[in-house]
Formats: sequence, C-alpha cells, structure tokens
Amino acid sequence: MEQTYFSSNFRLGILGGGQLGKMMLYTTRKWDIQTYVMDDAETAPAFEGSTVFFVGDIMNYDAVMEMGEQVDVLTIEIENVNVQALQDLEDKGIAVSPSASVLNLIRNKSRQKEFYRSQNIPTSPFETYDSPKKDHGREFPFIWKSAEGGYDGKGVKVIRNQDDLKELPEQPCLYEDMIDFDLELAVIVARNASGEMKTYPVVEMEFHPEANQVEYVLCPARISDDISNKAREVALKVSEAFNHVGLLAVEMFLTKDGEILVNEVAPRPHNSGHYSIEGSMTDQFEQHIRCVCNLPLGDTESVISSVMVNLVGEENHTGDVIYDGIEEILSMPGVTPHIYGKKQTRPFRKMGHVTIVNKDINEARKIAEEVKKKIRVIAAE
Amino acid sequence: MEQTYFSSNFRLGILGGGQLGKMMLYTTRKWDIQTYVMDDAETAPAFEGSTVFFVGDIMNYDAVMEMGEQVDVLTIEIENVNVQALQDLEDKGIAVSPSASVLNLIRNKSRQKEFYRSQNIPTSPFETYDSPKKDHGREFPFIWKSAEGGYDGKGVKVIRNQDDLKELPEQPCLYEDMIDFDLELAVIVARNASGEMKTYPVVEMEFHPEANQVEYVLCPARISDDISNKAREVALKVSEAFNHVGLLAVEMFLTKDGEILVNEVAPRPHNSGHYSIEGSMTDQFEQHIRCVCNLPLGDTESVISSVMVNLVGEENHTGDVIYDGIEEILSMPGVTPHIYGKKQTRPFRKMGHVTIVNKDINEARKIAEEVKKKIRVIAAE
Repeated sequence: MEQTYFSSNFRLGILGGGQLGKMMLYTTRKWDIQTYVMDDAETAPAFEGSTVFFVGDIMNYDAVMEMGEQVDVLTIEIENVNVQALQDLEDKGIAVSPSASVLNLIRNKSRQKEFYRSQNIPTSPFETYDSPKKDHGREFPFIWKSAEGGYDGKGVKVIRNQDDLKELPEQPCLYEDMIDFDLELAVIVARNASGEMKTYPVVEMEFHPEANQVEYVLCPARISDDISNKAREVALKVSEAFNHVGLLAVEMFLTKDGEILVNEVAPRPHNSGHYSIEGSMTDQFEQHIRCVCNLPLGDTESVISSVMVNLVGEENHTGDVIYDGIEEILSMPGVTPHIYGKKQTRPFRKMGHVTIVNKDINEARKIAEEVKKKIRVIAAE
Repeated sequence: MEQTYFSSNFRLGILGGGQLGKMMLYTTRKWDIQTYVMDDAETAPAFEGSTVFFVGDIMNYDAVMEMGEQVDVLTIEIENVNVQALQDLEDKGIAVSPSASVLNLIRNKSRQKEFYRSQNIPTSPFETYDSPKKDHGREFPFIWKSAEGGYDGKGVKVIRNQDDLKELPEQPCLYEDMIDFDLELAVIVARNASGEMKTYPVVEMEFHPEANQVEYVLCPARISDDISNKAREVALKVSEAFNHVGLLAVEMFLTKDGEILVNEVAPRPHNSGHYSIEGSMTDQFEQHIRCVCNLPLGDTESVISSVMVNLVGEENHTGDVIYDGIEEILSMPGVTPHIYGKKQTRPFRKMGHVTIVNKDINEARKIAEEVKKKIRVIAAE
C-alpha cells in the first residue's frame, strides 16, 4: 500500500519563517505533514508549528542545501533565497516549487518586464537600463524601479523631474510609464505539477498613500463580470507562460480605458489572498501546499465576501508590540484578527492582519474602516 | 498601557494534547497566545504547535499543579483530569475553566442526571444505584451507564433481560429508560466569565450502529424552527444552571412526541462542533478560547451548511496508519480532511475527520456518504 504526502516518511521544507510560512503551517498541522522551516532566528513567526526549525540564512548556499537535502518537496515564502542552491536541489531530484528558473525571472524586475513583452502579456510601457539614464526621452512623472532587491515599496520611486534622477543608486533599473489607473487588482492562480489550474476571484487592492503597502483588500473586487473574466484570463496566461508550479499572485492595473496591465507577480501565497482563510472554500495557504505537493486543487470560490486589513506598526512607534484595541474588535461580528507574533514593532512593519466577512462587500468595507480606527499597533512605553 | 490576553506575558494552559487540544492551538497560533500543553507523550497530536509541551499524566495531582502554576488561564480538552489540582489552582487565583465543581458534577453520570432533575431540566426517567440492582422494577430494554469512566460509548450498555445484569461491574451506575427518539441533536453553548452567552445552531448526529460513535454530524439539523428554538433554549438553561465558563456541548434526544430531553453534556469543544472550522463565522475552538480568556464571544452562525464525518480506524486494522483514498477526496469540492497525527490506528479509534460544505445540506450529506466510501483508515502491512 503506497502513500506519498500523507505518510510519516514525507517531509515538506519551507524557506522563510515569516507570516507566510507560519500560515502555511496551519495546513501542515491540519494534515499532519512534517514540515521543516528555515529562518534566521527562533523568534520567527513560523517557529512554533514547524516540525523541525533550522536557524539559518536562506540566502546562504550551504544552509539551503543542508535543509533541502532532507526534504521531499521544497517551497519558499519569500523570493530572496539562494537560487543556485534551489537549482542544485532540483538537479538532485528534490521537487522545488517555485523553480529556480522562475525565481530568476521574477526576482529581477527588468527581466520580468522583458518576459511579459516577449510573451505578449499586457504590461505598461517601459525601458530597462544598466544604471539610471539621464537621456531617456520619457515624459515626467514616471516610475523608477530597481531591478533587484525591491520589497514592500522599497526600490520604487516616482520621478517627477530630471533632478530626481540624481538621487538614484548606480544599479540596473527600469523606467516605466505612470499608469492612470482606476483600480489595482490581483488574481491568484493555483497550478500543480500535473498542470491543473484554478484562479481565485479578482480582488481589489487599496494602498496606503504613504507606506505604499496594501491597506485594504476586497474580495470580490467591485468590477463588472467582463473585467473580472478578462483579469482571470490574463492571470492564467501569466502562470502558464512561467510554467509555474504553486501559487502565482498577479497584480494588475485596471486602466481608465478598461484595459488590464500586469504590474508584477509573486510566486507564493500573497497578502492579497489572506482573506481566503475566512472567505474561501480553500484558503491560499492550503492551495499552495496542494500545488507544490501535486495534490488535486481545492475549490477557489468564496463562501462569503471579505475585506482584509493589514495591521502595520504605527509611525513613531518602535519597540515591544501592543495591539491596542484588539479586544474591542473581537466583539464585532465577522471580524477575525491574525497576529503574526513578531515581538518588535516599527513604523509600517507588517504585524498582522484582520479579515472582515459579511454577505455584503460594501458593508464589510465599512466595518473594515471601523476596525482600522479601533486597532493600533504601538510600542509599549 | 495594559494588555492582557494578547501580551507576551500571558500563558494559556491546556490539559490534554489530543485532537481537541491540537485544534485549540490553531487559534493560539493565529493569535500568538503562548500555550502550555500537557499529555503523556511527545507523540500527542498537540505536541507541535504548543509553546511548551509538558510530558505528564493529567490525572496526577503534582503534574497538573506544576504546569497549572505557570499559566494564567487553564482549560482542558478531556474531563478525566485531576480535579483536586484544578480546585487548588482555582484557590491560588488561576482562572480555571471549566471549574472543578462543574467537572465533578459532569464526570459522574449519576450526579449529572440528579442535577438535571433538581434543576427541572428535561431528561429521560432514571434511577441511580451504588451497584447494579437486580430488583429494579424497570421495563426491558433499558440503558445501564457506569457513573464514572465512560467515554466514546464505553461504560454504556443496553440491558435486554435480567441475565444481562449479571455481567455488569460492581460499581455505582444508573439505569435509564430507553428513549424512542426521532433524532439525536446537539447544541453547543458558549459562555464567558462575564456571563455573555451564545448558542451554535442545532446539529443532528447520526451514530455508527456498532461503534456507538458519531458517524455524521449535520449542521443545520433537518428540523423545524420551533424544535430548533426549543433545543437552543434548553441548552442555554443547562449552561446557566452549571454557571459554566467555556463551551458546553449539550447532547439531546428529540422524541417522537417532539419533546427535547437532555442526554449528556461535555464542558469543552466537542465532536459535534468540528464542522465549525469550515462552516461557522467563529469556530468552536476559537470560541472556547474566547470564553476561557473572557474575551467577547464571536458570531456562532454558519456561513454555509456542513456535514462532518469522523475518520475512525477500520475493524481488523491495528498498526502504522495509512489514509487510503485521501488524495481522491481532496479533488471533491468543499471537502476538507483533518488528520490528527496519531501514528497508530486501531478499530474505531478517532484518527481524523472530514468536513463537507455545500450550500445545500442534503447535497452535503450525499457527498459525505461518497467521502465515507472513498477513504479508509487502515494499517500498513
């Protein structure tokens, strides 16, 4: 009698023990899948709940190889890992998802954009450079992006005039047109090694104006069925083009002309899918594990409408974290806070999120605003 | 700035590390609540996910005191714990829920039934004895129950004639009338220390004819609103009568005359509430933690109809467990297996459960039967 994934001999590995790794462990605990996690300290959110926790640097070749050789399936919760090690583990027969080649494509924003162009995937007009170019002929304002190392709004700037260019670091980058968009949307695509594919409903992202981080995610997005279908089709095309295994979160602009343009992708569970824990038939973390273990995909449809609010550290607060007002929001129906377990807060650090479910998406959005007013992530005095 | 439950100084303790303890940890991980768990071996389902795991016998006074003195709030996942230790911990100011007095009442089925009689809570006619009585004057068949130690159908027998009495152990017991019931129902009541109370919808339990274990749980029960309201009222009355803090699962008979009779109760999350992880606005494990930590209660209503199927060990199978067919049921929409992580199976041992959600309860019930046919908990050869 053979048993693969639900056997006590099977080992899953996750590189990165932040909140995404932690939320993957909800499923590995539910299914009793033995899971090895690596991050740089035992204070990482995914320490508890892991079967074996490796203290190590996921950018370090030897560290990744050491853990990777002990697992059957290896995945990531963040793109900044040692890709050479992933390549070598693949060559040794470990099932690595996302693959080294996909990570190489995605981690470099210039390569990612060139890839969209080559695959006829709609994206905003852009040009790539080895270093910031003064003589660019592009209309102001436009967007500068560092080719590598950007995360959560770092490595991205609006360039308003020629002077702004002087402050940029001398490194590979791209300039792209600033898009006059109506909405920012995202679609999560699930794909397993057998090629089974499903998309989650289109979500709408509202960004915090200063932090350039997602503030609210609404599922479903308040758009027409036509736009929704178009967005899901584009997302499927992107996942197929990458021949990607796992979740792929595809962030998009909906332009004022009703056009869908792919902005960027993440090859893993994503902030835009956190609502799915409470809102979906199958949550994104379970779905990611289904994908990387080549299990049948779960139903991606929603059971109820939902809004997700990120809990980020307040400005001017650094130190031991306090979730001021959390007991108050627990008394609001349909409101579920998630606390990642980071001991220290700092301005705009992602410390948790709150999901608000309601039969009516507009009502959920209203409650989300109430939640936002009542809870504050601050530092103890 | 004060913070109680969501503070890094707060400790929750759980006596018992089986599947119920394990599923409570889903919430403590979600909320980053540091949780101490005690059970007799590190192979217990709740080992992973606990902050600190104590290897110890929860029936042992010293063991319970040792862990109990290190936590702020102490709860249980099973009634068979050292109650004297709980009493002494309460006296030292630890918030213990359920209380020692409630456990003393509930753990003894004779005392439990006498309590219902004294509180005018409807229950089947019965008599209690210090040992099985030959001269009882009760019509056959009737039910014999051992006053203490019964669990999952042990300590319960149908007495069909005077000869059956000879096989009974010489210990305190009760005889009760066999009820000609239509359905077995259950209502979970949540109550926190502030006295806030909520009931979950009425569920319907279908029992396995041989194992005397719940085979299917349907939420909502297929009954009229009148019966449903009556059952919820009776359940509230029971929780109030006990002055109980935590979840109280109230099992009931719906007689052929439409009467509700309380059968027995469990002062903790219960098999009849497992569906709530997928089916409810707030799952029963989160709700129990809200109760014992005196947090506001969550919404108990369902987001979708659901049926829960227990995964128990097949007859004639003892040894290393295999979940035959699990990958097949994963491809069925709305089907979520939960694997408790017990390494060894034996006949009728609870090894996991499967939740089936669907907009239509009758459709969910049909799919549940398919699931039951496809998955088998067997031993490796």
